Amino acid sequence: MEIKVVKDILDANERLAQRNQKLFDDNKLFAVNLMSSPGAGKTSLILQTLKHLKEKTKIGVIEGDVSSSLDAEAIGREGIPVVQINTGGGCHLDANMLTTALDSLPLGDIKLLFIENVGNLICPAEFSLGEHRKVLIASVPEGDDKPFKYPLMFHTVDAVLINKIDLLPYLKFDIDAFSRTVKGMNQKVEIFPISCTTGQGIGEWVSWLLRQMKGG
Amino acid sequence: MEIKVVKDILDANERLAQRNQKLFDDNKLFAVNLMSSPGAGKTSLILQTLKHLKEKTKIGVIEGDVSSSLDAEAIGREGIPVVQINTGGGCHLDANMLTTALDSLPLGDIKLLFIENVGNLICPAEFSLGEHRKVLIASVPEGDDKPFKYPLMFHTVDAVLINKIDLLPYLKFDIDAFSRTVKGMNQKVEIFPISCTTGQGIGEWVSWLLRQMKGG
Repeated sequence: MEIKVVKDILDANERLAQRNQKLFDDNKLFAVNLMSSPGAGKTSLILQTLKHLKEKTKIGVIEGDVSSSLDAEAIGREGIPVVQINTGGGCHLDANMLTTALDSLPLGDIKLLFIENVGNLICPAEFSLGEHRKVLIASVPEGDDKPFKYPLMFHTVDAVLINKIDLLPYLKFDIDAFSRTVKGMNQKVEIFPISCTTGQGIGEWVSWLLRQMKGG
Repeated sequence: MEIKVVKDILDANERLAQRNQKLFDDNKLFAVNLMSSPGAGKTSLILQTLKHLKEKTKIGVIEGDVSSSLDAEAIGREGIPVVQINTGGGCHLDANMLTTALDSLPLGDIKLLFIENVGNLICPAEFSLGEHRKVLIASVPEGDDKPFKYPLMFHTVDAVLINKIDLLPYLKFDIDAFSRTVKGMNQKVEIFPISCTTGQGIGEWVSWLLRQMKGG
């Protein structure tokens, strides 16, 4: 009985996600769903990416949080369109929340839309939003065992960024072993070690993103 | 309709949590629910606490994870009773899962039970397990803005540990501002800056824990 309810919810979500993607495609807009643990660097990644791309393409952001609008304020200071979704306790964004938020964005003026999901490695992996790519930000302080503990997330995404590599001298994190594990679970995934503090690796990430936008 | 279902689930959970707590009390066992983001240091904290208390009191551990038994294996090497709960996709432990796991533990031989919840700052805060104390492990790399983003968790717990203070020289984290924010949301909370790498602050945490066990 419970399983039936969950399946109905996911089916309904999928239908709304497809409607969102059609809206994106009609507007020639490329949407990226950014997911991570709390504090792994989703907002910092958006800010770093803006440095590279703000003059080259039109970017918009949807910020998902249980509570607060701190991240939306940080993004808003960059002078680009941003909408905050507060889930009010909900542990993930769903396609319906996104539909509502999209009403507040000038979609025809946006070419690249970042959707920052709620900080959580579990439920966001189950709910498509209509995005063109799913991206996970892992981070060095979280440890290199996370693929074993949160397999659906690592299995689902198109790219994994390993953030905070500037902290590698102070922490145990085996990038090669981590990457092998992730590739073993998800052969198509791209992996980018980065630091949103030093900027290291951001160029490679941005190049990949531009290739995806061009249908590469 | 959805709200009614959620309320029924939480009511049913509360009844089972009370039954778990009665079982703990009948066995003179003190239970602590450890919650945090992925990789903030729940297992490391248990291992550090074992160093201080293993010879003084009988400890048992329940490990909650979406998948894998890595943490249970690490704890098991310490030679204490441990049971793994795999939620199979579920983003939190609930009282019913705990009831099942308790069947596999020698409760009469355990005085202090650590329940390591699933790595998630959202849903675990909503589900009582029958524990005597709820403890949150925050960590320096996650940033000091988390109380604003995950208010229910910070509001619900009896103690907040700030782990990984050995990384303070390399990261922006204002312990005073963080502590003021948390105290503003939760006046009864105790806050302990610690490092599970260097052992700093673990003594204060262990002293607090022993006072709680004695009913202090």
